[in-house]
Amino acid sequence: MSNHTFRIVLDCPDQVGIVTRVGEVITNNGGWITEAAHHSDEDSNWFFSRIEVKADSLPFGAKELKSKLESLRDELSLNLEVLDTAQPKRVVLMASKGSHCLSDLLDRWKSGDLECDIPCVISNHDDMRSLVEWYGIPFFHVPIKADNKQAGFDEVERLIMEHEADCVVLARYMQIIPETLCQKLKHKVINIHHSFLPSFIGAKPYHQAARRGVKLIGATCHYVTEELDEGPIIDQDVTHVSHRETIEDLVRRGKDVEKTVLARGLRAHLEDRVLVHGNKTIVFN
Amino acid sequence: MSNHTFRIVLDCPDQVGIVTRVGEVITNNGGWITEAAHHSDEDSNWFFSRIEVKADSLPFGAKELKSKLESLRDELSLNLEVLDTAQPKRVVLMASKGSHCLSDLLDRWKSGDLECDIPCVISNHDDMRSLVEWYGIPFFHVPIKADNKQAGFDEVERLIMEHEADCVVLARYMQIIPETLCQKLKHKVINIHHSFLPSFIGAKPYHQAARRGVKLIGATCHYVTEELDEGPIIDQDVTHVSHRETIEDLVRRGKDVEKTVLARGLRAHLEDRVLVHGNKTIVFN
Amino acid sequence: MSNHTFRIVLDCPDQVGIVTRVGEVITNNGGWITEAAHHSDEDSNWFFSRIEVKADSLPFGAKELKSKLESLRDELSLNLEVLDTAQPKRVVLMASKGSHCLSDLLDRWKSGDLECDIPCVISNHDDMRSLVEWYGIPFFHVPIKADNKQAGFDEVERLIMEHEADCVVLARYMQIIPETLCQKLKHKVINIHHSFLPSFIGAKPYHQAARRGVKLIGATCHYVTEELDEGPIIDQDVTHVSHRETIEDLVRRGKDVEKTVLARGLRAHLEDRVLVHGNKTIVFN
Amino acid sequence: MSNHTFRIVLDCPDQVGIVTRVGEVITNNGGWITEAAHHSDEDSNWFFSRIEVKADSLPFGAKELKSKLESLRDELSLNLEVLDTAQPKRVVLMASKGSHCLSDLLDRWKSGDLECDIPCVISNHDDMRSLVEWYGIPFFHVPIKADNKQAGFDEVERLIMEHEADCVVLARYMQIIPETLCQKLKHKVINIHHSFLPSFIGAKPYHQAARRGVKLIGATCHYVTEELDEGPIIDQDVTHVSHRETIEDLVRRGKDVEKTVLARGLRAHLEDRVLVHGNKTIVFN
Repeated sequence: MSNHTFRIVLDCPDQVGIVTRVGEVITNNGGWITEAAHHSDEDSNWFFSRIEVKADSLPFGAKELKSKLESLRDELSLNLEVLDTAQPKRVVLMASKGSHCLSDLLDRWKSGDLECDIPCVISNHDDMRSLVEWYGIPFFHVPIKADNKQAGFDEVERLIMEHEADCVVLARYMQIIPETLCQKLKHKVINIHHSFLPSFIGAKPYHQAARRGVKLIGATCHYVTEELDEGPIIDQDVTHVSHRETIEDLVRRGKDVEKTVLARGLRAHLEDRVLVHGNKTIVFN
Repeated sequence: MSNHTFRIVLDCPDQVGIVTRVGEVITNNGGWITEAAHHSDEDSNWFFSRIEVKADSLPFGAKELKSKLESLRDELSLNLEVLDTAQPKRVVLMASKGSHCLSDLLDRWKSGDLECDIPCVISNHDDMRSLVEWYGIPFFHVPIKADNKQAGFDEVERLIMEHEADCVVLARYMQIIPETLCQKLKHKVINIHHSFLPSFIGAKPYHQAARRGVKLIGATCHYVTEELDEGPIIDQDVTHVSHRETIEDLVRRGKDVEKTVLARGLRAHLEDRVLVHGNKTIVFN
Repeated sequence: MSNHTFRIVLDCPDQVGIVTRVGEVITNNGGWITEAAHHSDEDSNWFFSRIEVKADSLPFGAKELKSKLESLRDELSLNLEVLDTAQPKRVVLMASKGSHCLSDLLDRWKSGDLECDIPCVISNHDDMRSLVEWYGIPFFHVPIKADNKQAGFDEVERLIMEHEADCVVLARYMQIIPETLCQKLKHKVINIHHSFLPSFIGAKPYHQAARRGVKLIGATCHYVTEELDEGPIIDQDVTHVSHRETIEDLVRRGKDVEKTVLARGLRAHLEDRVLVHGNKTIVFN
Repeated sequence: MSNHTFRIVLDCPDQVGIVTRVGEVITNNGGWITEAAHHSDEDSNWFFSRIEVKADSLPFGAKELKSKLESLRDELSLNLEVLDTAQPKRVVLMASKGSHCLSDLLDRWKSGDLECDIPCVISNHDDMRSLVEWYGIPFFHVPIKADNKQAGFDEVERLIMEHEADCVVLARYMQIIPETLCQKLKHKVINIHHSFLPSFIGAKPYHQAARRGVKLIGATCHYVTEELDEGPIIDQDVTHVSHRETIEDLVRRGKDVEKTVLARGLRAHLEDRVLVHGNKTIVFN
């Protein structure tokens, strides 16, 4: 199990000695650091760190490692998490009728390229059921009705909780998540927006792009917050387009960017490389 | 002079026979087409074309070629231009204190990589004088004073006219061009905006970008119109940035994109590859 | 059927009047050109053209259009094809155990983003059968045995012929196609090679890339010829990699480039945008 | 001087406790870490680290910091360097007739975007003298004669030594550096090669690229070693090209990639982000 590691992810007010204090806890217990990155943000005077330690170099598990590090919590005002790569995150996918992101993620997962469990897929349409079930994953059709969205989202929330999701991915799920659910799942819901935010916030970004005559279209992977399309950005990318391309072409071309950026952002999240501070992310890639 | 060509650039309401009618004029006079591109825009039902003809395959010059094509003008409601590559465009550069775009364009020009004449550089600051003069190009310092911008821009206009500019390039010229000048030089003034428009319109786009926590920064080359940052886009590009980068880093990183995109957009313009229709461009690259 | 077009694709020795002669045939029959591109290659003195004509603007079909254009064939020494977009190309996919390219193409096809028919998938392994069959496409398992490859490829050839393939796509099919089959299917077999050719020709390119310590990995979509990895290149792309990435990471990262480039190259081929001349392609994108 | 830092760059056989042992030396002296990155290479079982410490958080300078860290040298078999950002590296530029890389670097330097001193420029041609001197930098014309290259390179070596160069940049210097000089300046000479290595090693890579019909051209920034074009790669990039582009176009298009990649690679080197291990680099970007 040479790739079995514990990941220490922390942030705190910046000060002298953080790296060393944390390092001592690791080293005094024989911990072998395989990768580490630290960042100090000058504007906010805040410190961020991600450290991977070989699991078999320590005489104990992730929980005890965390409890040992907790001794520093008060002193350093730490936000602290210790993740165990032997416990893959549980990712609930949410989709609508469009298949490109969903199909892409499922293929990555089945190929072993996405280290997570997918306990279920939830959709407001039934179209993708048989594909999802082909992958051996339970599929729940939860319609969101215009006249009673709350009922639908109550069921969505129930399913997310029941499946003990660590993370929810909106793989082109076309509904707006209610505020209360956003708050309950803070920094746990990942969305792919089909524009290079903050360009073209809101509906039909490809139509907006065509109208403006842009020469690039893009996609943005971000954490969902109460404010639509305003959450912390994890990753973005763009592709060149020309005058020849119709709106249908832009939509099709955009799909390629969307699925690539979503997969990349999700991977960073699954590898615990993304720390959120205010409305920004630190991504230790 | 095997690369000496005439470039026919035209647009008109779409209909049957345009390519052939124009082609007949060329062929009946022995014209040898080296490159051609046609585009029909479905939404506006408009047709665009760019055709290069070997100059020495015709028994006459660009003017006579144009007058022969003019016979079709009424019939087809043509907008028509015929350009002669033996007559390089006259490009007036306008700059401020920043050197990156100006220095880049001057080096390209001196290396023979930018086919144009540069009759002069105009700046509202004197900083770049000696570099410009090192390149053997006249430099005019025209201050734009907050309490009398019009006087400055009157002088700018006079210089542009005196130097018979075909095209004006705002190479990070930090002043807003007055409406009347924009109208007089319609589709002849090229600007480089330091963001991926329509993101971050207006002042200090890198500060806006840092605040939003974007993972890409960009630049946009566009024709200047009366509405700030709203003119037809010629080219755009972006580069990835990370949490580590401060605003100063973004500014520095952005310079690379700005100068690359400006040079690319200007080249397309100089090669008569850019046709404007409403607020969009057709770029026959 | 406003998008129903005929595509005229031709190449011939360069000379005066080609565009016009062809244009006259189109126009004299009322043909409405929606898009056209011409290219004259100076080195080889050869001319290439691709013209799309609205089908309903002509009083006849693609066959008759072709026969009318054939009148020019001898005179201009034309290589000529006329394609009818109402007759989607028949694309046989060949795959092995890896799913990323296959799954990507199938999703694009089912979403209507890839205009072709897929009469069958052929594989030397049975692993992908149920996924392919989920898409409603016949799957043929044709093992290629080390001691009798010819028998396998005889069956492959029989299936390709039986399914009247216009085009064969090697979607990470890990076998080398025999010379005789390459010759029979000249410019009809598209391969995706997992390196930025001509770097790392042959086996295990990601291992070669890791050994050399490159900072980019890539993929190349090309027509298959008798010489391994030497066929005309249709499209290529790369992605940045870092010291942190192991060979397994490179393989995984490379998959993204492979599937994107293959889909892009195949699309260009399906839209009849790719002309082959010697060992190079003209791609009218 | 809030940006004044000391940079600790080290590598050693991997083992438990390196980060912490080094961290203790820093912290026990009040050192404030602003950024740090560690990497453990599994294949070679080697450890790499780069740590930035605020200079004014320590009661002493870079030299004493280094001598304190040297106490660990034997124990950990460290390769160790401590750099002081208040002492900019001295970079000797070498150029030939082409101006694009040289002009680009000089503009960056003058704009304050490249933190280094440039004590002189050496060239085997006199063409760039007046531009270099315009920037206030001494220029040395050292011809390299075909019948006595050694005499030229002796003078080059003398100038490099006399100007106490920390680093030499071959900004499209078209001569091959002699083996003995390569060895004396190991990992201190940075070259920009005009292809995406290992494609098109050796002379006239753009001609090779045109012949192969590639759809991307690139550039590679690498340390010079005795084996031509085989040194450790620092950075690479590419740009798309089309069938329309002649060799002259490729050369021109390539210049943009060359100057961008060289500037990026040099910046990484100047910021002490590049560690060399065997024939590969670790780049802590």
